[in-house]
Amino acid sequence: MTLRYPEKPTQDEKEAFASYIYLTSRLYPCGDCATEFQALLQTFPPQTSGRRAASQWLCSVHNEVNIRLGKEVFDCAHLDENYDCGC
Amino acid sequence: MTLRYPEKPTQDEKEAFASYIYLTSRLYPCGDCATEFQALLQTFPPQTSGRRAASQWLCSVHNEVNIRLGKEVFDCAHLDENYDCGC
Ligand SMILES: Cc1cc2nc3c(=O)[nH]c(=O)nc-3n(C[C@H](O)[C@H](O)[C@H](O)COP(=O)(O)OP(=O)(O)OC[C@H]3O[C@@H](n4cnc5c(N)ncnc54)[C@H](O)[C@@H]3O)c2cc1C
Ligand SMILES: Cc1cc2nc3c(=O)[nH]c(=O)nc-3n(C[C@H](O)[C@H](O)[C@H](O)COP(=O)(O)OP(=O)(O)OC[C@H]3O[C@@H](n4cnc5c(N)ncnc54)[C@H](O)[C@@H]3O)c2cc1C
Repeated sequence: MTLRYPEKPTQDEKEAFASYIYLTSRLYPCGDCATEFQALLQTFPPQTSGRRAASQWLCSVHNEVNIRLGKEVFDCAHLDENYDCGC
Repeated sequence: MTLRYPEKPTQDEKEAFASYIYLTSRLYPCGDCATEFQALLQTFPPQTSGRRAASQWLCSVHNEVNIRLGKEVFDCAHLDENYDCGC
């Protein structure tokens, strides 16, 4: 999703993205994950200034979760190359 | 996500869910799908009155997409039994 975020977002687009993230953290279907996500967002608030900032931010937050769960850490340096929108 | 939606949501929870759906339709990373999703939401607005209404609504909207894409139609009668939150 962040890889389709505008490179130069308007104020409205920035607010839509930040709202979406905060709503996701409220509605996340695993209750513990929702609490965890909300805590992460306090430490790492959404970066909305542009596509690269947003993508790197989301990748690093996802990696915080990966680390806690003992999963493989994703290489955030090559996000764009790995991405396939699937349509 | 709808399967964890409250059975008796507050006004605030209803608005959070509806906002989340509309924001998803704006931010959906496949541009054509976003347009399609927005059109579907005009015909089938989010049902926010409770868990069952929300789950059935989302399942049926997803089936509209499945039909268009020639995918298998999901059986919305047995949603709860099939659901595993995974954590
Ligand atoms: C805040 C939060 C807390 C969570 N807590 C738990 C928990 O306690 N227990 C639990 O089981 N699940 C938890 N989850 C869900 C967990 O992150 C996984 O989504 C879930 O375990 C399913 O794992 P998966 O291997 O199927 O997919 P994922 O690990 O989500 O991977 C799906 C895809 O994302 C890619 N990917 C992985 N890391 C990154 C990254 N940093 N950036 C971009 N792409 C990446 C993978 O390569 C893969 O293709 C939490 C999620 C969040 C957001
Ligand atoms: C409005 C909209 C338009 C889209 N248009 C396109 C498009 O034009 N081209 C394209 O490639 N993709 C499109 N997509 C994405 C598409 O729906 C699939 O998500 C995508 O093709 C990936 O397919 P998949 O088989 O991996 O997963 P999905 O088909 O998303 O299935 C994932 C999981 O959901 C379950 N599932 C399937 N149907 C339902 C249902 N009705 N209720 C509950 N669970 C269900 C499946 O059993 C599976 O476990 C669109 C999505 C939306 C929301």
